[in-house]
Amino acid sequence: MANDLASRLLAASELHGDFVLSSGRRSSVYFDKFRFLTDPDLLKETAHAVASALPAGITHLAAPEGAATLLVAAVALEAGLPIAVVRKEPKTYGTMSQVEGRVPQGARVALIEDVSTTGHQVRRAAEALEQTGCTIEVIVLAIDRGGAQHLREAGYRVTSVVEVRPAD
Amino acid sequence: MANDLASRLLAASELHGDFVLSSGRRSSVYFDKFRFLTDPDLLKETAHAVASALPAGITHLAAPEGAATLLVAAVALEAGLPIAVVRKEPKTYGTMSQVEGRVPQGARVALIEDVSTTGHQVRRAAEALEQTGCTIEVIVLAIDRGGAQHLREAGYRVTSVVEVRPAD
Repeated sequence: MANDLASRLLAASELHGDFVLSSGRRSSVYFDKFRFLTDPDLLKETAHAVASALPAGITHLAAPEGAATLLVAAVALEAGLPIAVVRKEPKTYGTMSQVEGRVPQGARVALIEDVSTTGHQVRRAAEALEQTGCTIEVIVLAIDRGGAQHLREAGYRVTSVVEVRPAD
Repeated sequence: MANDLASRLLAASELHGDFVLSSGRRSSVYFDKFRFLTDPDLLKETAHAVASALPAGITHLAAPEGAATLLVAAVALEAGLPIAVVRKEPKTYGTMSQVEGRVPQGARVALIEDVSTTGHQVRRAAEALEQTGCTIEVIVLAIDRGGAQHLREAGYRVTSVVEVRPAD
């Protein structure tokens, strides 16, 4: 089941061509996470798998801003839990918040990310959430491309739906 | 029913305090759309209302990047339609795309936005989508704070779940 989802996520998202990666290197393969996040069936199945991986006692879901907000919305509908969206930088007007949505002190948060290779963006989001007085109970990666290990080394509990060893 | 949803969206999102708006002006009221988009019940009800407003024949949903991706994900699960996310600027690596997700030529798109006051961001997203060869069949605003009129003047069919007259 999980393996079947894994192979379909990868089949939907792995593009072949001539690409320049974010690192500046060229590659004949590019992993486009939007391909699975924008497919309603794959989004729903992935959200179900993420929701099933949540430990008991979670009060709030969170995700870094960007593509992961598609996934966290689908998980929230599945789990009936409120959402927080963590900006890279605090908003410069209005609420001036880095964390959008309501996360009360003492909230027990599951932080959700679509794909993590280095864990950097997830870790920054986790730290921003912790500064508001909540606890990161678990980080759930839909696809772990290496980020889980770095996040565990930083002290977080991490689970993933699919593990992929990056080609390079 | 729609009126009840309207009053609950506003009650959830209208904050009172001392705020600096994006225009630079101060205000004692701030409308924080994340408050309704991050509440799973309000998100679900709003998505249901948006999905119910879709005309027949829509093949794809789209939303500008940002908060509206929470809403478009929920609508996609309700309607079973694929999603496109429109960046403000094209990606600088990988697919180099401004429009994420797959929108084939000839797609009949419903462009969804959470709140629109001027219509500017929605119009830019609509134009980026049209450049890929698809047709914007309708623009659906969860909350119209004045944007619908501007978008209609630009030639788009627009519908909204809730209409709010801005306080200023």
